[in-house]
Amino acid sequence: MLLPLFLINPFNMHGKNQIGFALSSNGELMQKAVNPATGQFLSGDFINATDEEIELTMERATAAFAVYNKKSAEEKALFLEAIADEILALGDALVRRASSETALPEARIIGERGRTMGQLKAFASHLREGSWKEARIDLAQPDRQPLPKPDIRKMLVPVGPVVVFAASNFPLAFSTAGGDTASALAAGNPVIVKAHGAHLGTSQLVADAICRAAKKTGMPDGVFSNLNGKGYQLGTALVKHPKTKSVAFTGSLSGGMALHKTAQERAEPIPVFAEMGSINPVVMLPKKMDAEAVQLADVYAGSITLGVGQFCTNPGLIVALDSPSLNDFIAQLSLSIKKILPASMLNENVYKGYVAARETALAQSGVTLEAEAEGDTVNFEGRPTVTSVSGEGFLKNTTLQEEVFGPYSLVIRCSNKEELLEVLQSMGGQLTSTVMATEADVAEHAAVIEQLGNISGRLIFNGVPTGVEVCSAMQHGGPFPASTDGRFTSVGTDAILRFVRPLSYQNCPQSFLPEELKDNNPLQVWRVVDGVRNNGPI
Amino acid sequence: MLLPLFLINPFNMHGKNQIGFALSSNGELMQKAVNPATGQFLSGDFINATDEEIELTMERATAAFAVYNKKSAEEKALFLEAIADEILALGDALVRRASSETALPEARIIGERGRTMGQLKAFASHLREGSWKEARIDLAQPDRQPLPKPDIRKMLVPVGPVVVFAASNFPLAFSTAGGDTASALAAGNPVIVKAHGAHLGTSQLVADAICRAAKKTGMPDGVFSNLNGKGYQLGTALVKHPKTKSVAFTGSLSGGMALHKTAQERAEPIPVFAEMGSINPVVMLPKKMDAEAVQLADVYAGSITLGVGQFCTNPGLIVALDSPSLNDFIAQLSLSIKKILPASMLNENVYKGYVAARETALAQSGVTLEAEAEGDTVNFEGRPTVTSVSGEGFLKNTTLQEEVFGPYSLVIRCSNKEELLEVLQSMGGQLTSTVMATEADVAEHAAVIEQLGNISGRLIFNGVPTGVEVCSAMQHGGPFPASTDGRFTSVGTDAILRFVRPLSYQNCPQSFLPEELKDNNPLQVWRVVDGVRNNGPI
Repeated sequence: MLLPLFLINPFNMHGKNQIGFALSSNGELMQKAVNPATGQFLSGDFINATDEEIELTMERATAAFAVYNKKSAEEKALFLEAIADEILALGDALVRRASSETALPEARIIGERGRTMGQLKAFASHLREGSWKEARIDLAQPDRQPLPKPDIRKMLVPVGPVVVFAASNFPLAFSTAGGDTASALAAGNPVIVKAHGAHLGTSQLVADAICRAAKKTGMPDGVFSNLNGKGYQLGTALVKHPKTKSVAFTGSLSGGMALHKTAQERAEPIPVFAEMGSINPVVMLPKKMDAEAVQLADVYAGSITLGVGQFCTNPGLIVALDSPSLNDFIAQLSLSIKKILPASMLNENVYKGYVAARETALAQSGVTLEAEAEGDTVNFEGRPTVTSVSGEGFLKNTTLQEEVFGPYSLVIRCSNKEELLEVLQSMGGQLTSTVMATEADVAEHAAVIEQLGNISGRLIFNGVPTGVEVCSAMQHGGPFPASTDGRFTSVGTDAILRFVRPLSYQNCPQSFLPEELKDNNPLQVWRVVDGVRNNGPI
Repeated sequence: MLLPLFLINPFNMHGKNQIGFALSSNGELMQKAVNPATGQFLSGDFINATDEEIELTMERATAAFAVYNKKSAEEKALFLEAIADEILALGDALVRRASSETALPEARIIGERGRTMGQLKAFASHLREGSWKEARIDLAQPDRQPLPKPDIRKMLVPVGPVVVFAASNFPLAFSTAGGDTASALAAGNPVIVKAHGAHLGTSQLVADAICRAAKKTGMPDGVFSNLNGKGYQLGTALVKHPKTKSVAFTGSLSGGMALHKTAQERAEPIPVFAEMGSINPVVMLPKKMDAEAVQLADVYAGSITLGVGQFCTNPGLIVALDSPSLNDFIAQLSLSIKKILPASMLNENVYKGYVAARETALAQSGVTLEAEAEGDTVNFEGRPTVTSVSGEGFLKNTTLQEEVFGPYSLVIRCSNKEELLEVLQSMGGQLTSTVMATEADVAEHAAVIEQLGNISGRLIFNGVPTGVEVCSAMQHGGPFPASTDGRFTSVGTDAILRFVRPLSYQNCPQSFLPEELKDNNPLQVWRVVDGVRNNGPI
């Protein structure tokens, strides 16, 4: 059982900006935290950062970069592990605060805390292994004709200060010490977090933890900062700042594109890795549907409503051929959806966004309401909803391709295989696509599955898109508009690749080469030497 | 000895657009080719592509993608090798035409042809080796608690049609079948080349060769196209086209940034890999300068004027501490520069650009003309020039950081170490930086060398920046404004990484997995399986 908050919380909800190791609150504007499930204010007045505080933050980050950049892989790994330890040390106070600010159940927050710590530790291991720097060595050939070949060695180096926009739907795993922060720090860059306005207290607690970890492990002042402010104003100032070298964002299409535009209009354009809207189509192929309509409906009722539908990978579209078994599927899905209780969404904005988007979708010509959860809704509760439309109706109306962020899914009844393929060809980029199929379906519908691969970052067979494994092979990011840059992932160890660039050394003395490129390969990293992969010395 | 052109040229200079395998000339506007060394017109009326022809080109490329994407690595490798063979088979006709259109000596064109063929063959080898797709496999753990772990496998896949802007300064190696085309084709994407207006005939001959190679090796119609048109108009249309998925460009900062802006303003933003301006600073450290002033001057007189200074990596800035040996260096450099004969530049635009930029540089306060080549200049000949300025003068005037594209270099006399570091800190991103140093200099001036690394894609020790080795460890691209995206290279086998994205497969049946991800690893590519690198089966 959790103790009452005032007894267990040793931390003052000071509401200040964390600028490197210093707390600062020179501003006059402030925000309060709200419990979305009760509408009541939570403790803490969160002071917005002033322009001068933003400037100071960026200066401190730039100064820290020169020092942090040179820390060894082991030193950085210890820092990341210390962050995980400090987060755990926040104990119930963090769990309670995060749960109160987001309406997410405490059990979910505890699970997410484990994931967040797991991510930090995964990057620590990745640093210790070291091969991610993609060292390549082409040895000199002084006697080559007509010109001698120089010695050229290349590896990845960090880019500089990274601004991270915390996401609302994962107040730990995609927020202050989430995957973006972990990967940017692992790459060797200082991080400046724009705290999410809907969980400012959670962000403060985690920022405190990160700074304690930084001090304990000897990291420079400025390696991490956490600022409060109004989204657009603070976000724009951070992205425009000339000392910012890269940006990571998870959120809406409109938010991500506004930041992308701002970043491209700078004198020095910088990348914005925005993970944005996705409707995550699920194609149910005929033999699978005929065999398992009822089971599929039960599995998908769960996936559509998991976490009140507030996952980037929520299955927003279910595509199938019209058939008696599709009717069975819809009937069973409707039964399940009606019985699922509405639950509070993350905050007022998310709730209002869901209500409006759901209403817009329902108002579209040809869209049938198949089922919605019964009962009254209070306190920003989102109502689980399933609708349907014909393939023809879907193809005629691009509004139906817009994400309805929440517990909502649209079933598309296609009249034949050609129409089904056309429906998929009409879609923009997606984080995920899923195919529910027997082996015979896979063989018969290869073109459909290939098309799903063409538009997606991850192609799932006989599963649900919700649930994003943190691992080396994960791709979380897809062709536009799922991401601004589908060549990178925001989940898994490859997320580090967003925040580095290659640097070649030509005829560099051994004394000046980084460890990863020295002849004797002291870190035993895997390298490509004259085209041959190995992890030994030269 | 080369035969007269009319005897050896078996190819009709038809001047048409190559749209897939078809030649098309529906337009009314046309361009003529000019010999910059004589001012005379060359054979061929080059018909500009119409909007309908552009549309047809993009449709054909998109259709070709679906087929080409599925060709095996071996099939694509044979295609690239066939292109190299067909280019060689063009024989003297190509050499003569390229030389006449660019004023580059025939020996240089022959060398560049070798490099171009070498690039194509290097990508063929890279495809056959196969490990570049960065396959990662995380095996399932069905018994994991609290949730089973799915099987996830990831590798790089092509993005779709790539538009390549041919560069003027390498009419073969950075043009129609140059590194951008070779890497985009190797990645599995169709290519549409915007022919450079200053070597339209060369582009036509090479486009013909590519299409012959495509037919001989069974590649789909539309895998390659070559269009003529006015730079801004055709370029904008191609970048705006919704079927274009990526763009490669080598040229001016203004040209690259205009394309980047256009690409970011699309409904679906796409990357523009623009390799743009760079002044490639060279720092001459004191002990090296004291020991070898005269030799350094001779080496650099050659590098500054190589190819009439028309290399992206031309050393435009020489930075050193003021000293008697710097005076010796400048005196010797001046002697050499005065004796170097002016030579025709690539075309009228390049020549006029050089004259104007040189004039602007000479007019800046505090800039001293140290030496210029003697004698009259005719036929777009660029006059080798060396100037100098104090460190203070350089820091006060950002105009001096602008590239003077041609045989020009500015020597910066710094009054002390701090000023030298400040000069380097004031600079934008560079393709290359060079340090001329003894071992003692390297130890003593680590901060200077680190700063050069911070701003550059390639850091050269005791050499010249001109000359870009085509190899695995090469980085040709640097922080902005050297490139729009310093995370990628346009030279060397890693150039392929610009035109791919990762795709994850979750719980995918073996039958549907690409060869690189199958359990038995039939292609024996290097993969990371559950964190362990190996090239065997699972």
